[in-house]
Amino acid sequence: MAPDAVRQMHLGLFLLGTGSHIAGWRYPGACDSFQDFSAMREIAAIAERGRFDLIFLGDNLYADPLAHPSYTARLEPLTLLSALAATTTHIGLGATASTTYSDPFTVARAFASLDHISGGRAAWNAVTSASPAAGANFGRAHPAHADRYAIAEEFVAVVRGLWDCWDEDAIVADRATGQYIDPAKVRTLDHTGQHFNVKGPLNIGRSPQGRPVILQAGGSAPGQRLAAMTADVVFSVVQDFSEAQHQYAAFKQLVAAHGRAPDSVALLPGVMPVVARTDREALDILGTLQGFIDGGNAMAMLSERFGTDMRAYDLDAPVPDLPLPDSYHSFVGALLGKARRESLTLRDLYNLVAAARGHWVLCGSAERVADTLEHWFREGAADGFNVMPPYFPDGLSDFVDLVVPILQDRGLFRREYAGATLRGHLGLGPPWDGCNPYALT
Amino acid sequence: MAPDAVRQMHLGLFLLGTGSHIAGWRYPGACDSFQDFSAMREIAAIAERGRFDLIFLGDNLYADPLAHPSYTARLEPLTLLSALAATTTHIGLGATASTTYSDPFTVARAFASLDHISGGRAAWNAVTSASPAAGANFGRAHPAHADRYAIAEEFVAVVRGLWDCWDEDAIVADRATGQYIDPAKVRTLDHTGQHFNVKGPLNIGRSPQGRPVILQAGGSAPGQRLAAMTADVVFSVVQDFSEAQHQYAAFKQLVAAHGRAPDSVALLPGVMPVVARTDREALDILGTLQGFIDGGNAMAMLSERFGTDMRAYDLDAPVPDLPLPDSYHSFVGALLGKARRESLTLRDLYNLVAAARGHWVLCGSAERVADTLEHWFREGAADGFNVMPPYFPDGLSDFVDLVVPILQDRGLFRREYAGATLRGHLGLGPPWDGCNPYALT
Repeated sequence: MAPDAVRQMHLGLFLLGTGSHIAGWRYPGACDSFQDFSAMREIAAIAERGRFDLIFLGDNLYADPLAHPSYTARLEPLTLLSALAATTTHIGLGATASTTYSDPFTVARAFASLDHISGGRAAWNAVTSASPAAGANFGRAHPAHADRYAIAEEFVAVVRGLWDCWDEDAIVADRATGQYIDPAKVRTLDHTGQHFNVKGPLNIGRSPQGRPVILQAGGSAPGQRLAAMTADVVFSVVQDFSEAQHQYAAFKQLVAAHGRAPDSVALLPGVMPVVARTDREALDILGTLQGFIDGGNAMAMLSERFGTDMRAYDLDAPVPDLPLPDSYHSFVGALLGKARRESLTLRDLYNLVAAARGHWVLCGSAERVADTLEHWFREGAADGFNVMPPYFPDGLSDFVDLVVPILQDRGLFRREYAGATLRGHLGLGPPWDGCNPYALT
Repeated sequence: MAPDAVRQMHLGLFLLGTGSHIAGWRYPGACDSFQDFSAMREIAAIAERGRFDLIFLGDNLYADPLAHPSYTARLEPLTLLSALAATTTHIGLGATASTTYSDPFTVARAFASLDHISGGRAAWNAVTSASPAAGANFGRAHPAHADRYAIAEEFVAVVRGLWDCWDEDAIVADRATGQYIDPAKVRTLDHTGQHFNVKGPLNIGRSPQGRPVILQAGGSAPGQRLAAMTADVVFSVVQDFSEAQHQYAAFKQLVAAHGRAPDSVALLPGVMPVVARTDREALDILGTLQGFIDGGNAMAMLSERFGTDMRAYDLDAPVPDLPLPDSYHSFVGALLGKARRESLTLRDLYNLVAAARGHWVLCGSAERVADTLEHWFREGAADGFNVMPPYFPDGLSDFVDLVVPILQDRGLFRREYAGATLRGHLGLGPPWDGCNPYALT
């Protein structure tokens, strides 16, 4: 962020086509398919009308019809975002691609291509794949948590190295002389590492943003370390303000410890807004949604997240003391923390999980929602939010039509896009100006 | 093809953004960047206006600024076709994805997603990666030719198995009961093979075409075998009519030997049309293009294709007797055959390679081009053509505006699309009707 700019929120749209509430697709009029491109196009248009910084797509590398029935049949992120690149003009386009089950050359190339196609709006969410179920689809043993992060660090460094192989002006295309490329401006990478050997260069030239934006969402210590070193935007999982404030301060300190300016990384907690004109209407919407919850699904999801069969425990007793599992650190940590602070039962917990899969639910009138978001933003708990509508499209258009104008009136959010690239929306300079001095360590 | 239908040509557009002529980008007004999405969108619109069956994207997994300067910086095929899916409505969208350097789960998923996004227009060109340079970008030793095809056979079988894991009606999405998926209609694949172990199911439901269309282009014996077993459309490399006729008969026989109806696979030779209102104008265009050829580039490309440094040979002596290299069998075979039949020098050969990288060049008035295509089509040399314009967009729009109407007037090509899926354009039934009984062998 330039020092004299007014600080404004950044908003991401978490696009899970059937809604982030586990039963959101059952809401009257809600989109009930994450395979319906015309519905996704409409959602993207609403988010762009709301001047969101970016659309963000999570991912899974396995089908799980039991725990996640409505999330399991889904469009693949890169194909979906590429199609949305052609139907939108300004909004950023962020997709998840696994560092555990992909090749760095393929990932670097695809996101560079999306950046060209979209005119500088691509972002890569570099994740480690949490579930062993993915390994079975790729014929490999699922690496342990620490190994996954060691692989991820090298993977991200290779991808960034590949993006840097081409200078901006390497393509000459001089019709008169016939020279197409200036070979002095294209370099091999010649990476030889612990996990990857990649020669390069990439077979696509430098992309409009210089490098696509890097997103991250890991909650564990190595995940936070990777984010502090490499990310431009970080998504987090929190349940309340004081936890968010604590996490924000700790993360910004970690960014500084890695030699980067704390405000060069935007930290966006996930929030599921359930919003209407009045508190009463909003509570009614949430009540309707919670009424759709099927206990079996929620318990299956809890069991998966906690890495143990939760059906063995008493639903109405306090949440038992459970160890942090090998995966989903951030989700499980946030939920267990809240359960201890508020003496929740397992039933309370699965209602929470079902509502927003462990994310923060913010229910109320547009004024209340805007007040709360402003409070978090001004008081050092967030640089903006990853908005997770419970269902589509109305769960999003209500936020865009009711909450965004209040934030705009208060000077907290843009009225128009100032530029056409995601780096521009985020207030980041070009990636080669030294603000982001990540090197292979 | 239904037995009572009138047999019509199928036309594919080979989309190489800078044109299929090595120096096509130097032609006045020609597109000089394969990274320019708005230019690609315009080209796709012209092909759709011309009622082409499909757009087809080849691929490389390495940069080669010396031999292929104008082809080396390119948009990645799946991201490009997904974006074009949103800007077109009927034309098929075929992309190359390597069976040597990809995972079957990833490929199956991406093409199923493209099929959903495009409403049933996706096609996968299942290739083995010919160049060892790819291996260096993926940290692996490049497998030998025979191994690549053994891997490819298993890869294609796994991809098709994954596409078949979901029944058409597996997604119930019943708002009243809350049932989203009928678990009896989703199966694991549980593939355990020589090269791949893949559990499945895919995390995307059955796609509009049932299965995306399968394309193939391999010219070697194992490549032809794989095509005969699995392909819906086959691209070939030929230099003249009698060779094409011979190849056509042999391939259709091979298809029958694999228990499939010969007309269930369309064989489309590649052709570079250089077309104008008169023969003279067309020859002038070709002359201009050939005048742009830089001998160094053409020799580098020849050396790569032949697997040996061709600069050691006399340019103006007859083409030496060279063994077939480990890669590019079809290209090298077609070129050496022509060279022997017509006593070509190495200079003649590199002019040919530069013109269309070994493909057939058809230069003349629109009438002459249409007559020749009709002759090939009627006399058992082709089911249609993979059209490779020397430059874009005019090299394509000249074909669409001058040649296509003649073919339409003669009843040889559609005036309008009859349906909205690529399988429909190709006259293929649904993939599960038994016409395509490929199983793992």
